[in-house]
Amino acid sequence: MSTSAAIREAVEQAMPFAESLFDRLKANTADGAGVSREPYGPGEQYAHDLMAASARELELGVESDRAGNLYMTLPGRDRSLPAWITGSHLDSVPVGGNYDGAAGVIAGLAVLAAFRRHGFTPLRDVIVMGVRAEELGSWYGGNHQSHIGSRAALGVLPPAELQAARHSRSGRTLADQMRAAGFDPDAITNAAARLSPERCHGYLELHIEQGPVLEARGLPVGIVSGIRGSARARNARCIGAYSHSGAVPREYRSDAVLATAALCVGLDQAWSAVQCAGGDLVFTVGKLYTDGQQHSLTKVPGETWFSIDLRSQELATLEHMTRQARSLAEAIGRERRVRFDLGAFDLSPPATMDAVLRGALGAGAQALGIAAHEQPSGAGHDAQDFAQAGFRAGMIFVRNANGSHNPHEAMAMADFCLGTQLLAWMLLR
Amino acid sequence: MSTSAAIREAVEQAMPFAESLFDRLKANTADGAGVSREPYGPGEQYAHDLMAASARELELGVESDRAGNLYMTLPGRDRSLPAWITGSHLDSVPVGGNYDGAAGVIAGLAVLAAFRRHGFTPLRDVIVMGVRAEELGSWYGGNHQSHIGSRAALGVLPPAELQAARHSRSGRTLADQMRAAGFDPDAITNAAARLSPERCHGYLELHIEQGPVLEARGLPVGIVSGIRGSARARNARCIGAYSHSGAVPREYRSDAVLATAALCVGLDQAWSAVQCAGGDLVFTVGKLYTDGQQHSLTKVPGETWFSIDLRSQELATLEHMTRQARSLAEAIGRERRVRFDLGAFDLSPPATMDAVLRGALGAGAQALGIAAHEQPSGAGHDAQDFAQAGFRAGMIFVRNANGSHNPHEAMAMADFCLGTQLLAWMLLR
Repeated sequence: MSTSAAIREAVEQAMPFAESLFDRLKANTADGAGVSREPYGPGEQYAHDLMAASARELELGVESDRAGNLYMTLPGRDRSLPAWITGSHLDSVPVGGNYDGAAGVIAGLAVLAAFRRHGFTPLRDVIVMGVRAEELGSWYGGNHQSHIGSRAALGVLPPAELQAARHSRSGRTLADQMRAAGFDPDAITNAAARLSPERCHGYLELHIEQGPVLEARGLPVGIVSGIRGSARARNARCIGAYSHSGAVPREYRSDAVLATAALCVGLDQAWSAVQCAGGDLVFTVGKLYTDGQQHSLTKVPGETWFSIDLRSQELATLEHMTRQARSLAEAIGRERRVRFDLGAFDLSPPATMDAVLRGALGAGAQALGIAAHEQPSGAGHDAQDFAQAGFRAGMIFVRNANGSHNPHEAMAMADFCLGTQLLAWMLLR
Repeated sequence: MSTSAAIREAVEQAMPFAESLFDRLKANTADGAGVSREPYGPGEQYAHDLMAASARELELGVESDRAGNLYMTLPGRDRSLPAWITGSHLDSVPVGGNYDGAAGVIAGLAVLAAFRRHGFTPLRDVIVMGVRAEELGSWYGGNHQSHIGSRAALGVLPPAELQAARHSRSGRTLADQMRAAGFDPDAITNAAARLSPERCHGYLELHIEQGPVLEARGLPVGIVSGIRGSARARNARCIGAYSHSGAVPREYRSDAVLATAALCVGLDQAWSAVQCAGGDLVFTVGKLYTDGQQHSLTKVPGETWFSIDLRSQELATLEHMTRQARSLAEAIGRERRVRFDLGAFDLSPPATMDAVLRGALGAGAQALGIAAHEQPSGAGHDAQDFAQAGFRAGMIFVRNANGSHNPHEAMAMADFCLGTQLLAWMLLR
């Protein structure tokens, strides 16, 4: 039997184990139609306890760091070599789906279960990591940065964030929440990095796709080329002047809605131009509203509020589009007698996945007969923190109908099995 | 002395009388920075009492109809002839300005005061009318039709409206409010028209301009060509689909904001085309908003709500733009994978001012040396109800900085004097 065939068979046989983990996780963190695994709350803790118990049954080394991240290690043949790390996060958004995050940890454990059962010993240590609090923003307010666990493990979490982040409902700080969960935020803050690029061969993360691309193209698996960075105007405004919708002629109006519409259409055209030139970009005005207290059917609108979210794998594209937004806003403002205040654009740089790992993932998919393609990740993932900290990082997407961050995530176990086979293939290299 | 010079002098001498009426009206209906003269409330009643008392001092005939409209009559040389009617409304929006409406009644009284003082007896009776409840919508909710007094006097007020209109704050019906003010809504409802086109030589209304045109062009007086009709979509929607702002590529999005922006820009272009072709149009999207409960910086927006207000002097233009809106919505919906639900367009037809009266107003302005021009009225006025009921109607606009329906209306008495001279010239014909 070829190595590829052996891997395929071994991982297939680990699927009932994986499925039972998914089932127990869902049953014990259910919340209405979905699941809720709040960072440093009982749902996330249940997930960590479940994974740790399964790892102990597989006789893996089980450790936690001061931020509560979980490390489950299968020793390799040469323990002096830098280790593989694979994993993802175990928290979820409120009333989210069962797969976003957890699939990456369960895939890692399924691979190690397959290795144990079939006596495959990898060259180097394989560490399955369960990351804490990747979805923090959905619980602590969107203006706060997420990815707490990975950044803590990498030693790049600014201490002030643990005090600044306040729970959307309770108002409790993240530091207090961590303390209540039995961790010591002060120690975390002062800790050196738990992980370093020198001691890591590479970070691999399997994750459900959060968009419709694999579903639409009929592919079970995607290889992530990079994680899009973002440039975001969170609280943009257009300031015009309220006036009578019947009595004021066109040339005397300062209409904030028509000006904002012109800006949206202008940026939409700039988006098309970037795509035609082969660039990577998505552009979203997720929020747009006139003033509910002042607007009226019969008033020329005097003000709008809106948001701009630009995402690209290319820093230059983000910079180009930010400039476009500013110059369009100025030109439209002049032409239409309004003033735009876009505010500062928050810039989060793109994270490129490692070229060698991408090539290996492609070769692996071919060897295993898995139909896969390369695609960007539009959503953020722990892998971007590893990449930005100087680790080689790669990601495997698994097809998922219905998007993520909702109870209707739909990942077929057959697709999960293919993604997990590809992960196993990598970890045996 | 020429007739023109005599009119000029007589009206100028009546200005202190007019100014004292404005002052007393403002002092006794003051509400914060502005005035409040609620339909069938104490402010409007004070205005009616003040005008009636002044009319009695001028020895005019004073009558009211069952809707509470006030008629102050100077007998003409031939009382068998159809009478001139001039006037406007005496109510105001909440915390509005002192001139919107009242200026037209005070102008009429100032003309009659000038006629009395200088012994001018017009050929036909001149009736100064103080109209009730023109601003009803601002007190009873915008979905309700206003112009209660004029429609009641003209016999075109559907009985059901008095029961259907409910006060925005108290919830009381208009019928109850009229009853509490001492009128009999049932009698009004069943009354025949108080006024008929056969017994009226023409209806003339002086009113402050509610837009900036006269101010911008440096003209004290405007002659109204027509009152714009409107076609209104009060509760239009665009239905797309919420999705991840980072993970969903352009071709899989159903972005309600970009689709709505494209519709706004398309209609804005259609507006330009109508104007370039010499048509009359204003177009306003006064309200536009995503869902505050669901929208987010990081979600492709799945829905918008918005309003469309189209106004024109030409019914054909309103019909053309309504068709444009529907066809653009369909094309954009198809292209962008969204669905527009514009709902029904409420159509209020334009009212053309009488060509003979317009010509006479132009001739009068020339004879009096008043710089004036023709312009449409974008706002509605009682004059439109007279025009639609088959009366000859004309309107005189007086320059007004700062728009109307706010405490900052600014009409110079010198401009008011010129407009009133023009009115006097007409009433002596």
